[in-house]
Amino acid sequence: MTEEIIAGRNAVFEALASRRPVNKIYIKTGTQGGSLERLIAAARDAAVPIEYVQGEKLDKLAAGVRHQGVAALAAPIAFHSLEEVLEQAYAKTGRPFLLLLDELQDPQNVGALIRSADAAGVHGVLLPKRRSCPLNMAVAKVSAGAVNYVPVVQIGNITQTLQALKKQGFWAVGADMDGECQYFEADFDRPVVLVIGAEGKGLGRLVKESCDLLVRIPMQGGVNSLNASAAGAILMYEVVRQRLQGHIK
Amino acid sequence: MTEEIIAGRNAVFEALASRRPVNKIYIKTGTQGGSLERLIAAARDAAVPIEYVQGEKLDKLAAGVRHQGVAALAAPIAFHSLEEVLEQAYAKTGRPFLLLLDELQDPQNVGALIRSADAAGVHGVLLPKRRSCPLNMAVAKVSAGAVNYVPVVQIGNITQTLQALKKQGFWAVGADMDGECQYFEADFDRPVVLVIGAEGKGLGRLVKESCDLLVRIPMQGGVNSLNASAAGAILMYEVVRQRLQGHIK
Repeated sequence: MTEEIIAGRNAVFEALASRRPVNKIYIKTGTQGGSLERLIAAARDAAVPIEYVQGEKLDKLAAGVRHQGVAALAAPIAFHSLEEVLEQAYAKTGRPFLLLLDELQDPQNVGALIRSADAAGVHGVLLPKRRSCPLNMAVAKVSAGAVNYVPVVQIGNITQTLQALKKQGFWAVGADMDGECQYFEADFDRPVVLVIGAEGKGLGRLVKESCDLLVRIPMQGGVNSLNASAAGAILMYEVVRQRLQGHIK
Repeated sequence: MTEEIIAGRNAVFEALASRRPVNKIYIKTGTQGGSLERLIAAARDAAVPIEYVQGEKLDKLAAGVRHQGVAALAAPIAFHSLEEVLEQAYAKTGRPFLLLLDELQDPQNVGALIRSADAAGVHGVLLPKRRSCPLNMAVAKVSAGAVNYVPVVQIGNITQTLQALKKQGFWAVGADMDGECQYFEADFDRPVVLVIGAEGKGLGRLVKESCDLLVRIPMQGGVNSLNASAAGAILMYEVVRQRLQGHIK
């Protein structure tokens, strides 16, 4: 079986906490600190062997990712099927909430969006197979381990996926600078798939056309755009707010 | 006069667009692309000399920051005084909106927060002199040039600044995991200073005690926290939303 490297204290801890199969943990000899004690205790509970190694070995394993003296060998992050994600979501709520990332290639943004999606209670993150950044160690680290909690679905054609979701009653809402209404004017109290595009590029034309509604985030400053992960966090939490507080007509 | 290096196409373009004094632009020989044409046109309009250099010279100037073939020498980002920021804010609105960053040391977060602050129409970002990350090239680049637009104020003691603002009618709202209400329950339709703490550490005890209200962002996932810049974006845009749409009692 192929294994993946996880680097960084938080990422390794979250892999253990989420019960993802971890085969071995490497700790740099002499590393100390409170978060390390917590990690060692979690490894003991999960019966995962720890090997103490020199810094250079860890640097090599982590391949450029900041490891903070800790790395692990784990089973690769498993992709989920859309059917499975929908089934689990509907078992919890009548209003599933999905996030679709349209060709996002920056691991920093993808990791940050997965972390915010986890916090916002998103039931699944849809990542196109083509032209997306791979779900690698950098993404896992930026996500602070959230990749172990939010189901990620690899999808083929984006517009076909959106059409299929719409047939099942989903409302497809895309973020676009020229959106027809402000994001908070949309009513998110229903099954929703939120579609976020890559920074600088935005949503593809066909993807835009497949959305039921395009919403904009008001820009009040000198730089006329938000970072993709900030825009995503704002939109996801508007869904959360409306579901907890209600939508203003 | 000391000069600063700005690296990256967007950062250099935004420095020019915001009329920040730029003394020289360096472009790597052979660099091409649409955004470069736009940048060269802006440099011509601003009468800024361009020097074409070898890649190594640019790498050295940019000191590790991704430069995309472009760097510039510019006047340092000027700090503003709190009095000046308040005067300008009150000239525009009866409800000034400030962001205070409590000991944020990660340039990635500080830059991202300044970019979101610009988009949300924040009138000034307050950065404590001590234990904050410096307003350097990395921050400027992550901010996509927003540091040239949002006034940044260096402050001394955080609690004294908050007390002074409260005397002037500001409402100090801190973000805290154990906040007494959900962030959207707070009424932001008044002069507001939003206080964001460092990731993992949160707000200092004295800072918390100086706030009028501590608000929490609901966490619905496996990882029990948001990235500081995502949390800041969510809170800043709740202020924007309420001011455009009204607050739900």
